Amino acid sequence: MAQQRRVQLSTQRPTSTVCVLGTELSLDVCGSAPKDAVAFHVQGTPGVKLYVVHETQSIKLPSSVSRWPLAAGTEVLLAMDALSKDVGDEKVRISYFGEAGAVPVGRAMLYLTCVEVSLDADVTRSGAVSRTLLDKATWTWGPDGHGAILLVNCDRDDPEAKTPDNRDTAVRSYADLKDMSQMVLRTRGPRTIFTGHRLLLHVDFSNADKVGVFYGGNSVALEEYKHVLGGSKLVYAVKPSRHQEESIFYVEGLAFPDVGFSGLVVFHATLLESPEKGLLETPIFTDTVVFRVAPWIMTPNTAAPLEVFVCSVDDNEDFVAAVGAMAEKAKCPLTVCPLPENRQDRWIQDEVEFGYVQAPHKTFPVVFDSPRDRGLKDFPIKSILGPDFGYVARQAPEHASGLDSFGNLEVSPPVTVGGKEYPLGRILIGSSFPRFGGRRMAKAVKDFLVAQRVQAPVELFSDWLLVGHVDEFLSFVPAPDRKGFRLLLASPSACYQLLKEKQEEGFGEAAMFQGLEGVPKPTINEILANEGLRKFNNYVQSCINWNRDILKRALGLAEPDILWGVLGSLTTVPVPQVNMLVLGRHLGVPKPFGPLVGGQCCLEERVRALLEPLSLTCTFIDDYFSYHVLSGEAHCGTNVRRKPFAFKWWHMVP
Amino acid sequence: MAQQRRVQLSTQRPTSTVCVLGTELSLDVCGSAPKDAVAFHVQGTPGVKLYVVHETQSIKLPSSVSRWPLAAGTEVLLAMDALSKDVGDEKVRISYFGEAGAVPVGRAMLYLTCVEVSLDADVTRSGAVSRTLLDKATWTWGPDGHGAILLVNCDRDDPEAKTPDNRDTAVRSYADLKDMSQMVLRTRGPRTIFTGHRLLLHVDFSNADKVGVFYGGNSVALEEYKHVLGGSKLVYAVKPSRHQEESIFYVEGLAFPDVGFSGLVVFHATLLESPEKGLLETPIFTDTVVFRVAPWIMTPNTAAPLEVFVCSVDDNEDFVAAVGAMAEKAKCPLTVCPLPENRQDRWIQDEVEFGYVQAPHKTFPVVFDSPRDRGLKDFPIKSILGPDFGYVARQAPEHASGLDSFGNLEVSPPVTVGGKEYPLGRILIGSSFPRFGGRRMAKAVKDFLVAQRVQAPVELFSDWLLVGHVDEFLSFVPAPDRKGFRLLLASPSACYQLLKEKQEEGFGEAAMFQGLEGVPKPTINEILANEGLRKFNNYVQSCINWNRDILKRALGLAEPDILWGVLGSLTTVPVPQVNMLVLGRHLGVPKPFGPLVGGQCCLEERVRALLEPLSLTCTFIDDYFSYHVLSGEAHCGTNVRRKPFAFKWWHMVP
Repeated sequence: MAQQRRVQLSTQRPTSTVCVLGTELSLDVCGSAPKDAVAFHVQGTPGVKLYVVHETQSIKLPSSVSRWPLAAGTEVLLAMDALSKDVGDEKVRISYFGEAGAVPVGRAMLYLTCVEVSLDADVTRSGAVSRTLLDKATWTWGPDGHGAILLVNCDRDDPEAKTPDNRDTAVRSYADLKDMSQMVLRTRGPRTIFTGHRLLLHVDFSNADKVGVFYGGNSVALEEYKHVLGGSKLVYAVKPSRHQEESIFYVEGLAFPDVGFSGLVVFHATLLESPEKGLLETPIFTDTVVFRVAPWIMTPNTAAPLEVFVCSVDDNEDFVAAVGAMAEKAKCPLTVCPLPENRQDRWIQDEVEFGYVQAPHKTFPVVFDSPRDRGLKDFPIKSILGPDFGYVARQAPEHASGLDSFGNLEVSPPVTVGGKEYPLGRILIGSSFPRFGGRRMAKAVKDFLVAQRVQAPVELFSDWLLVGHVDEFLSFVPAPDRKGFRLLLASPSACYQLLKEKQEEGFGEAAMFQGLEGVPKPTINEILANEGLRKFNNYVQSCINWNRDILKRALGLAEPDILWGVLGSLTTVPVPQVNMLVLGRHLGVPKPFGPLVGGQCCLEERVRALLEPLSLTCTFIDDYFSYHVLSGEAHCGTNVRRKPFAFKWWHMVP
Repeated sequence: MAQQRRVQLSTQRPTSTVCVLGTELSLDVCGSAPKDAVAFHVQGTPGVKLYVVHETQSIKLPSSVSRWPLAAGTEVLLAMDALSKDVGDEKVRISYFGEAGAVPVGRAMLYLTCVEVSLDADVTRSGAVSRTLLDKATWTWGPDGHGAILLVNCDRDDPEAKTPDNRDTAVRSYADLKDMSQMVLRTRGPRTIFTGHRLLLHVDFSNADKVGVFYGGNSVALEEYKHVLGGSKLVYAVKPSRHQEESIFYVEGLAFPDVGFSGLVVFHATLLESPEKGLLETPIFTDTVVFRVAPWIMTPNTAAPLEVFVCSVDDNEDFVAAVGAMAEKAKCPLTVCPLPENRQDRWIQDEVEFGYVQAPHKTFPVVFDSPRDRGLKDFPIKSILGPDFGYVARQAPEHASGLDSFGNLEVSPPVTVGGKEYPLGRILIGSSFPRFGGRRMAKAVKDFLVAQRVQAPVELFSDWLLVGHVDEFLSFVPAPDRKGFRLLLASPSACYQLLKEKQEEGFGEAAMFQGLEGVPKPTINEILANEGLRKFNNYVQSCINWNRDILKRALGLAEPDILWGVLGSLTTVPVPQVNMLVLGRHLGVPKPFGPLVGGQCCLEERVRALLEPLSLTCTFIDDYFSYHVLSGEAHCGTNVRRKPFAFKWWHMVP
């Protein structure tokens, strides 16, 4: 339905008005009728299309009917197809007739000027602004969806700047402009109309603080770009002198979707008429464009690695070297966070999560900084934030708990659950189960993750663990078959079964932790005879079993999608090998130091037997003294920036 | 998909566990296999249904296959149909076989106790709690939807109480309990199981502050009802001694849906197992119920009136009498707010909006108190809040503007717009158009209205008015035809047309305001000759025309659904008759004091001619000195509590 504006006429004096291309005018033909009139005749110049709506039928003129009775509800509708060359160059005449006469009892004249006013954006998601017949005022998801997209300009294109680009109101570089979405205001028609009518660009109050708009007038010089809209600036009056037929505005998002912000921001261009001095202007046309701020998206283990991060601290030289060697095998650059930047904090998995933002015109990585804030606190903002590398953080006002570390934040590969598709996977976070004093992830972090909408989070039960992170009992590895991955779950009972098998084979005296100085070396017989240890591991297994059911339902997994096996128990005896570094087909598995049977570590052997059939290569990394005894493993000590999904987030339906 | 729990077995010692009715156990048949075992046989007592899942095929036992190969991924699933009479009265035996032997190489025994644990609510929306096969953990809209409903317990059943019932943690009366929704926890099975396993009722942390749960144990005595869950209480351990087979909990909502609160609240009942002393308990079963807090719903002019409100101030005796007479004709009780309670504030339309809340078990009215807060500030909470009359308010921290008065908050009758149904109508609020210093409704109020979801608000342009309320230029009246109503829009140009007609008929010297002392009495000739007045009214008409287009699109109206006519211009000359009191077919129209033509007010005559064909009766009420000169009319000076919609809000799809 076209926008329609009602126009009052008069038989006393001619009326002049503007008709915006693509809209209708509804002429109040009854309202201007002289007292004795009972019928009317309407005529227009060739550029005017006229319709008479009479008793709910719409008839296009010229029609065989030359006079219409003046019944209540009779309307004359008018549209124009072509821009005016001069002000008032098209007209409509309405002649009124009395009961008898052939001579009109009155005439109303309307002078029309057709102009174009259009606010456009990349509504078709092609990467460039184009005009469209799609409804620009709505935003829809899915492969057939439409609606423009904004990025949160959370990188720092100017290395000299102190803050991310979304915290200033300056354009410092062309690179900064390129992170923004274009919004194009087009006006065509006789120029004098635009000096007589005001043209405003404005943003809905409710989300004005979520965007910034920059405008450089006719100039391309950076210093001409001014912040014109957003924050407390709700309206920008487009000066005719600065404005050409096509003005390009640059729009940046300032904030990610979150509680109280759906991500949608609405802009309007409005044409105002001020027919009489001293009176306020009245709006005569509005065009509307909606943008959605792109969500922050996580990448699963199955995505190709682009950069591996590890911290160099006083005692982990060998570990850094082993991770470096693995990265080289996986042809993936290694970034070592040096001691001055990590301040002896080696848990880089816990401090940050790497993700990305994507719009049709631009994609860049964004690091999510956890509220954990230990030695690595300043590393993300000081050393990761930079040109085309964004930054976002959430605080935990209620004091961060262990469950706020991002080892407790993982994402599954793409899954389909009972027909519902999650083409970007689902976020997994660990939480408490009901008991007094349980820990949970900060509300601000969880709310942020939920508000992104595209990777609907699942809450697991991780508070039973000492540290309390989901990466302590699960991981995902790529697989050539089935859903393209396997879920690895730690299984103490599988480990017990293996040890019992070895005992039955006569290796009961084989001992753990060979080669580790100062570490007790329990034998298989001793481990199996330790009833306290067995009970503890039964408890661990039952907690993991509980999570298994949640995971099967939330990710739509069948039993063969899960690998149990001897992928380790928790802290007390065997090393949790599930806490691994995944770089494509290369797995960096914590060295389990299991009992040697025939010169071979039987735990390594079993891990290989499980994973190698999936064309995966296991590298066992000794992290015993450098990580394990400090309650973490290879996954906790590394982090990986990965390739964004090929799938575009706006093609999904959340 | 049934909840499934994995159970570890052992050939060393028998295992005991609980199977909750309606769930499955997955037996880790491979995990407990002796080293040499290559096949197994499984047998259960008659109360156990067994399935073997082998290479993704599920086969129910007994089957012709008596031995199954021990392949990876082979599972034994188990379900039970009937409650156990004694602990461990059903069992399963798994026998393992080696390559050659007919004699088992090992046996694993599992002792089973079947119990029922079920958390139920009125998921079917019948008005009573019943068991259901519907998914209790989801909440869906529409006529085929399901999911339980909570009311915000915002009335004050105890007249002695200082605050609404949702601000205390006490149950003061049975009436208070009746506002709450029941949630029933059922447990059946051998009682000793429930002394050995803990049963917890818990609420999701994120919305725990939005609900209160009360429990009286086996007692029906009021003083036994304790606040057990909600706020900082996240978990309630159900004591076996207080708990019968069926325990009834009473749930109240504390807050309406709003920014950051979707209205959904999730409760769980969880059974915990603590197999070994010194270890934490592990959850073995959870049942989940979701409630949605009922939205606050407004009623349109077309709804039957139940109670009319008017303020008695120093100078409005006649107006109060006139409203009283009209209320009597409409057979509707009148409530007069006396001077001590209104403190000379006569604008009761602006201070409050009457609406209601509804659940299948209970419906009651709720007054929404505006942030306007003038003389009537305390009236709603002191005099309207009471037994089965709720109260809700929102503040405007940024200082309330004229647009925060609830004369600026109306609702349309039910409409359908391009196929989309709004069976409860759409809320209409007035707002500013972009210009510097424009007024708008407080964000907190607008956000609240949007969050209710069932009457999607539409923003109109009202800031051009001196006072700035939508009720100054629009109203709805019932109609026997078309959509069941007409939208009345004020039209100064229709008024001008009428006056011109009368001038042409020779009544140019007829004057306005006859009988009003001390008021200038312009004649038709003088009014029509006043060019300044005409220009102002043209401006007014163009602003109303702008709103007409928004209303037509937002409510799906055709031209014949709109009544223009002489329903008044704004302040300057004719009285805005659109600002009327609607009580069924009785309309209380501000007396227009138009020019007398043949002894008849020509404006009254025209209003009658427009409205009487719709079987409406016009009563012209003189509010000139008591309201009009203070910038308001009959609608601004009255308020109406109306009958709730017959349509249930949960049957719509927002």
